[in-house]
Amino acid sequence: MSDHPATLTALIATDVAPRAKKSIYPEPFASRMEGREKRILGDLFGLTNFGVNLTTLAPNAVSALRHCHTHQDEFIYIVQGRPSLVTNEGKTQLAPGMCAGFKAGTGNAHCLLNETDEVVLYLEVGDRTPNDEVAYPDEDLKAVFHNGGWMFLHKDGSSY
Amino acid sequence: MSDHPATLTALIATDVAPRAKKSIYPEPFASRMEGREKRILGDLFGLTNFGVNLTTLAPNAVSALRHCHTHQDEFIYIVQGRPSLVTNEGKTQLAPGMCAGFKAGTGNAHCLLNETDEVVLYLEVGDRTPNDEVAYPDEDLKAVFHNGGWMFLHKDGSSY
Repeated sequence: MSDHPATLTALIATDVAPRAKKSIYPEPFASRMEGREKRILGDLFGLTNFGVNLTTLAPNAVSALRHCHTHQDEFIYIVQGRPSLVTNEGKTQLAPGMCAGFKAGTGNAHCLLNETDEVVLYLEVGDRTPNDEVAYPDEDLKAVFHNGGWMFLHKDGSSY
Repeated sequence: MSDHPATLTALIATDVAPRAKKSIYPEPFASRMEGREKRILGDLFGLTNFGVNLTTLAPNAVSALRHCHTHQDEFIYIVQGRPSLVTNEGKTQLAPGMCAGFKAGTGNAHCLLNETDEVVLYLEVGDRTPNDEVAYPDEDLKAVFHNGGWMFLHKDGSSY
């Protein structure tokens, strides 16, 4: 956090530059995140217990590969646009002012998909509980939270 | 969480009923929270690692007594209205789309104050790291997070 003074008081979320690295997934998954931009907000204030991003989805973009966590909870709040929330139960169209939460350990894999012609803007919150693992039921992929970063593996445990 | 099925997919945040108990502070502090309403969102989805509330401040209402945490990070995002953020450094007027974060352990005590004639609506996020303590520099009050709940004490450690 040395480049972000602890004395930052407040900021306009959309003024923050999007994260330069579009995705931390290995290929071929990273390329599927092209229409997604993440503005990393919580880190700018030095927060470490959880992260908060303002994320933009262009038309046809997805928030992530559909996934679920073993230990880390997630929450989203729609600021603008009408993304489809995809879960194990199917699709639900969201709208500004709607929210959803994804409790760790439930196995309910989720993602947002922008099937509209308008940009979607939403806040996403996730904590940083150690020993988290992420399952991706639709892909040959799993992730392990290791030393503060994500390691991506094939489902059989082999490296990408 | 037994009254909130884990299968809740999404909801309109403003449709959630405000928390019945207006404040968990002891008197005379609880009465000062009259114009504040908290809609508890994260708990409805069974989240336990952090809480997310949609909070409303009527004109002249405050978000909380000015305070800082030892272990729990906090984050706010302004949905509507123009509250004043009060910190150790003074006052900053916020606007919709602005955000702020409060890193635990910095000693920078903060609250929001609605000095306008319009209602303020904001999202607040806080984690639930154990052994947290809260300091209230302007009041004879401190709080300790104990067995998942808050215990309020005079600064000398005596009970309210």
